[in-house]
Amino acid sequence: MASLVPVTDPADPRLADYVRLRDVNLRKSLEAEHGLFIAEGEKVIRRAVAAGHPVRSVLMARRWFEPLADLLDGVDAPVYVADDAALEAITGFQVHRGALASLERLPLPGVDAVVAEARRVLVLEDLVDHANVGSIYRCAAALGIDAIVLSPRCADPLYRRAIKVSMGAVFAIPYARMTDRHGDLAKLRATGFTLLALTPDQAATPLDGAATGGRVALMLGSEGDGLSSRWLDEADQRVCVPMSARAMANGVDSLNVTAAAAIACHALVRDIPS
Amino acid sequence: MASLVPVTDPADPRLADYVRLRDVNLRKSLEAEHGLFIAEGEKVIRRAVAAGHPVRSVLMARRWFEPLADLLDGVDAPVYVADDAALEAITGFQVHRGALASLERLPLPGVDAVVAEARRVLVLEDLVDHANVGSIYRCAAALGIDAIVLSPRCADPLYRRAIKVSMGAVFAIPYARMTDRHGDLAKLRATGFTLLALTPDQAATPLDGAATGGRVALMLGSEGDGLSSRWLDEADQRVCVPMSARAMANGVDSLNVTAAAAIACHALVRDIPS
Repeated sequence: MASLVPVTDPADPRLADYVRLRDVNLRKSLEAEHGLFIAEGEKVIRRAVAAGHPVRSVLMARRWFEPLADLLDGVDAPVYVADDAALEAITGFQVHRGALASLERLPLPGVDAVVAEARRVLVLEDLVDHANVGSIYRCAAALGIDAIVLSPRCADPLYRRAIKVSMGAVFAIPYARMTDRHGDLAKLRATGFTLLALTPDQAATPLDGAATGGRVALMLGSEGDGLSSRWLDEADQRVCVPMSARAMANGVDSLNVTAAAAIACHALVRDIPS
Repeated sequence: MASLVPVTDPADPRLADYVRLRDVNLRKSLEAEHGLFIAEGEKVIRRAVAAGHPVRSVLMARRWFEPLADLLDGVDAPVYVADDAALEAITGFQVHRGALASLERLPLPGVDAVVAEARRVLVLEDLVDHANVGSIYRCAAALGIDAIVLSPRCADPLYRRAIKVSMGAVFAIPYARMTDRHGDLAKLRATGFTLLALTPDQAATPLDGAATGGRVALMLGSEGDGLSSRWLDEADQRVCVPMSARAMANGVDSLNVTAAAAIACHALVRDIPS
């Protein structure tokens, strides 16, 4: 049974998990140091708890207690209650979704483990935008991608904004983080995966003609630069979403990475019975 | 040749086009009343001008003059120059992209005219989120959709945020706004279009089996509610992006509207030689 603890002082050390939630650099180091992450909103908090993440504490406006009461009944952690002004003073933004939870990270599985039973895998190279990462997780989970592998420097799926944009899908799809950005790609191939590199380059094979017969790992690059030349070279096949010739002539020459990822995920899972 | 006019006073009436750019309601009425819209950033301003929109004025930090000098050479409108603090005081936000232009709207073509030569059309029903509208325009233009038809209440593609997210694609694809939300659908069908309704309902026909042989108009609904029952009833066929059974069991039961639109546009244009 959770204990309700009224709080008013933004400097209260018990609220240290929740400070300056919009300060990306601060949050990165704070969350890494303490092995925590922040989930926002009832639905996402429920998914995080269901995925086995222990709750460190909850912070909310009192009116949000009822919708979460059943969940908090089973949680042995303090539930801090504050008014809207105090919530904003603590977190640095207006907490529209009412409830925040600080949860413990769990050890990530290794790349080997996460792809062991997988047939369709995404490999994300150095995406820096948390919203894009969240959006790709949501797509991948909804469409039936089996697992995601992140390059060592790819943005954190458990960053608050990534979780929020993913609608909690970051808890629904297994993922691992590479320790060796080139060696781990080679290992994927050795495990029987065909490595496809998604590129805007229209000289590449259109997605519908891609070699998707066996196990497939689709590599996606960052928003601006795309895949590194090293990863492009590692690919068994380069694939593209065909652009309209008229659009290219008009200077509309690219999709955003999440639109391209959605199309690619759909193409990848299409031929597999679920 | 544009004249450079230094400005400092946020209340200067010559800057009335640029006030409170983040105040959606104010901007809607102001832009409608004066028949203007705001383009932000060099690339987007160039596209707006290339699309034939007369420039009312430009507002920028002085350092942004050079990159736009060639364009402004041909523009007979005042170029207001302000420092960053004044820019923020006028517009209500930090103008990262350096240059803003106020441009005149052009009369939109009618639905009949915009679809006359089209084979692939999107019909957007009551989307309220400007970023989603912009993102769908970008996808549609890049993939080769011929035209877009908006329901009477659909969000404005020339709202600043929609233009920005579209990367200027709102200037690259012809569009019209319905005056009669039901009659205009019937007219599309009478013109030979098969009306497809995209729905998350998994009982619908998977996209890959959709009736895309002839002229196709794909209807997309709003973020939360989807298509209205009236529009669903008007459809010749309801189509869906197949979701993963595992994901549905895990509660990941939907794609965001822009991901679904990307997949649908790709499916729609796939069989047409460009």
